[in-house]
Amino acid sequence: MPTLYHHSMSSASRFVRLILSEYGFHADLIEEQTWEKRHDFLALNPAGTLPVYVDDSMRALCGATVISEYLDETHGVLKRDRRLLAEDPFQRAEIRRLTEWFLLKMEQDVTRPLARERVYKLQMTAAQGGGAPDSKMMRTARANIRQHLKYVTWLAGSRQWLAGERMSYADLAAASSISVLDYMGEIAWAEVPIVKDWYQRLKSRPSFRPLLTERVRGLSPVSHYTDLDF
Amino acid sequence: MPTLYHHSMSSASRFVRLILSEYGFHADLIEEQTWEKRHDFLALNPAGTLPVYVDDSMRALCGATVISEYLDETHGVLKRDRRLLAEDPFQRAEIRRLTEWFLLKMEQDVTRPLARERVYKLQMTAAQGGGAPDSKMMRTARANIRQHLKYVTWLAGSRQWLAGERMSYADLAAASSISVLDYMGEIAWAEVPIVKDWYQRLKSRPSFRPLLTERVRGLSPVSHYTDLDF
Repeated sequence: MPTLYHHSMSSASRFVRLILSEYGFHADLIEEQTWEKRHDFLALNPAGTLPVYVDDSMRALCGATVISEYLDETHGVLKRDRRLLAEDPFQRAEIRRLTEWFLLKMEQDVTRPLARERVYKLQMTAAQGGGAPDSKMMRTARANIRQHLKYVTWLAGSRQWLAGERMSYADLAAASSISVLDYMGEIAWAEVPIVKDWYQRLKSRPSFRPLLTERVRGLSPVSHYTDLDF
Repeated sequence: MPTLYHHSMSSASRFVRLILSEYGFHADLIEEQTWEKRHDFLALNPAGTLPVYVDDSMRALCGATVISEYLDETHGVLKRDRRLLAEDPFQRAEIRRLTEWFLLKMEQDVTRPLARERVYKLQMTAAQGGGAPDSKMMRTARANIRQHLKYVTWLAGSRQWLAGERMSYADLAAASSISVLDYMGEIAWAEVPIVKDWYQRLKSRPSFRPLLTERVRGLSPVSHYTDLDF
């Protein structure tokens, strides 16, 4: 069986797990704490980032973009209307633009700093950078959430799904990032009803279930985290 | 004619210019100073990043990954042995992994901080973040160069081109980043003979010529920058 090196609070890892599940794949999950810089993990992915997918022939695919493109080429292409990338090159470009938006830009502005300060630091030793959360970092990241949710409101309000008529990688990427923030209670749902409607559709999918039942050490999720009607 | 919004010291912009040129495309170039946050530019690309490619139908494609995938799907696929992405999905994954390495990781560790401190800050107003270079930032970035060149040495030493038997996006991405650093005199060529041999092959290509003749305001390139035999 293939193996996925992941972390529960990594949006990019959640994104690949959702794709695998939507396409009906099973993979063994191994939680990787990238700050430990494990020698064997760096041998798989010298960049030291998550996720890493190791296929049945023991070949490693590194990073969410590389894995998602590979899965599209080898499997998505056969899925017809369940394909998570479009057929049309320009529509594919729009899906990729938004996927990158959520996995790189929103990740950098909001999700990674908050996950780092609130979760990763609890698991790190002092030498690895652990310790008390930096309140200035958290304030900056929180100030950026609003802008990103405004953008999702605009996308979800003007299209059926974030990148167009069909559910795509863009929705899975956005929902991955938002689900990490929701776990930490960082989303004020009452202020973003359009985002809530869209997220509810995704959260109800069977592919989402495993993500909702996971817990990280040291931090319990907000009470509504697993509710499909929140 | 299509238009490319770019900046001369942006590796991602150079990467797309090399692809266009290798495939025989012409595009009007518009230099964009992203720190000005121009309204019209943000309307094209809300992420505010470079490059942005606007095709003949006035459709915008944002970012190096999106543009390069689009160009592969619409043109590269017809180029046979001049295609800059491979046919085999696993080989494509390797090319994408390395392209991401140079355009995201090396960019973040080395190229963007040095370009920012040494070039962009000269062009920015104080309110935009201009001013004297931050020597601590430069020291950190310079300390990271060695590690990246060691990796290129390993790749170029064990393969014909960085990702395998054929020149690919991976070579163009690495050469884009290295050419920005070379402009600023940041590469100690004598220490990295294998990288030098590989870079010389790329630098001699006609697609590289326009990059070598460009100059940025406030900083002249090192004397050997345009020499093909450096």
